[in-house]
Amino acid sequence: MNAIDTMLQHRSIREFSEQPIEKEILDKILAAACNGSTMGGMQLFSIIVTQDKAMMEKMAPAHFNQPIATNAPLILTFCADFHRFGIGRHEGGAFPAYQWAVTDALIAAQNACVAAESLGLGLCWLGTITYNVPQFIEALQLPEHVMPVACIPMGYPKHNNTPLTPKLPVGALIHQETYHDYSDSDINRAYETMEQADNNVKMVADNHFANLAEDYVLRRYKKEDNEFFSQVLKDSMNKQGF
Amino acid sequence: MNAIDTMLQHRSIREFSEQPIEKEILDKILAAACNGSTMGGMQLFSIIVTQDKAMMEKMAPAHFNQPIATNAPLILTFCADFHRFGIGRHEGGAFPAYQWAVTDALIAAQNACVAAESLGLGLCWLGTITYNVPQFIEALQLPEHVMPVACIPMGYPKHNNTPLTPKLPVGALIHQETYHDYSDSDINRAYETMEQADNNVKMVADNHFANLAEDYVLRRYKKEDNEFFSQVLKDSMNKQGF
Repeated sequence: MNAIDTMLQHRSIREFSEQPIEKEILDKILAAACNGSTMGGMQLFSIIVTQDKAMMEKMAPAHFNQPIATNAPLILTFCADFHRFGIGRHEGGAFPAYQWAVTDALIAAQNACVAAESLGLGLCWLGTITYNVPQFIEALQLPEHVMPVACIPMGYPKHNNTPLTPKLPVGALIHQETYHDYSDSDINRAYETMEQADNNVKMVADNHFANLAEDYVLRRYKKEDNEFFSQVLKDSMNKQGF
Repeated sequence: MNAIDTMLQHRSIREFSEQPIEKEILDKILAAACNGSTMGGMQLFSIIVTQDKAMMEKMAPAHFNQPIATNAPLILTFCADFHRFGIGRHEGGAFPAYQWAVTDALIAAQNACVAAESLGLGLCWLGTITYNVPQFIEALQLPEHVMPVACIPMGYPKHNNTPLTPKLPVGALIHQETYHDYSDSDINRAYETMEQADNNVKMVADNHFANLAEDYVLRRYKKEDNEFFSQVLKDSMNKQGF
């Protein structure tokens, strides 16, 4: 499919049909993933291909047993990788290396997503990869200087009528020349469509919150959880030598 | 253009023709950028559009005066943005929020790149955005909880014969089920094509290095520079409240 149409048609797919992903389709996705921009031409990333259900089951608890972590025929995990570049040559520096490698891994990940969607597959990123990092490092046997960054289950969609996810209007995300701060009314206008989406109205009402942001901060992603997983991530970075 | 072909045809473009970017082309690029996957549906990013040459000149020193920082008709800067989500609502947590926002910003950035290239534009990421962060924060007037993450000049290519950049073979970046560590011969085989590219052979020879990695680590990206800019980045994260 045309690139622009593919991206404008993006929606999160969490349920997949039984149709397996053909090898030539997977090869196209991986080739596109590996041909993106990369910091200084260094290609500081690796891709782990998971197709073995036993491996998915092993990692499922670290994904909080979300069904999508085991019901997809394919999971691609993108790692920031400063290991391959270093072996038998020269080990790189510290933190900017991490930032670069994260960038390379995410460029590759998004290329893979656009490629997959252009070929009719559906997908949904799993943020849990940034939570229980030690479990993923162990399961995927990642050496020093390799960190998991993005985890994307993919497959042919089970349903063909999954709606688009409500999003902010494009204009609310764009700033001309400099950052223009938002007034209260800018914010209200920006979030109007998302706040009024049926499932969001219900969720906010059911939990007696003032708005969608409260639902996020007070229920879905609590400060104490953030701080806990923040520390896990930092500890994992240290352990992996970043 | 077809999404897969667009990505397989990617190459770095650093010189642009005089042809301006039409508004409807820019709008398509921004719409694609804003419709990617996003952590928890939060859209934790902002895009700064730079078309004013005076703004480009102002930021050029922080990009080490690379010609591309001023010769492109358009620069898109992608920022991790936890500010918009927080205003008048609830401020989010600390570091994982940064990791999420970086992910959202980079998904948007790569979508913009694929969109632009599918419409005939060329581009090249500027890693310098992760170096002189305070200067960019000041020039772009970024408030607390906003950090620049990716900076991409774009335009119609000046030349139509820019070669593809030599890359590692796809297989060298892929691991089945678990990370399979590289033997010395795996590494040599992986880097063979890049090491033998004419400009790399010349560069390594001119500088009396053993291999390409030495050129990177001992000349292009020195450890002391990495450590310096690493500290600048960390200080900027603290200053921006992450």
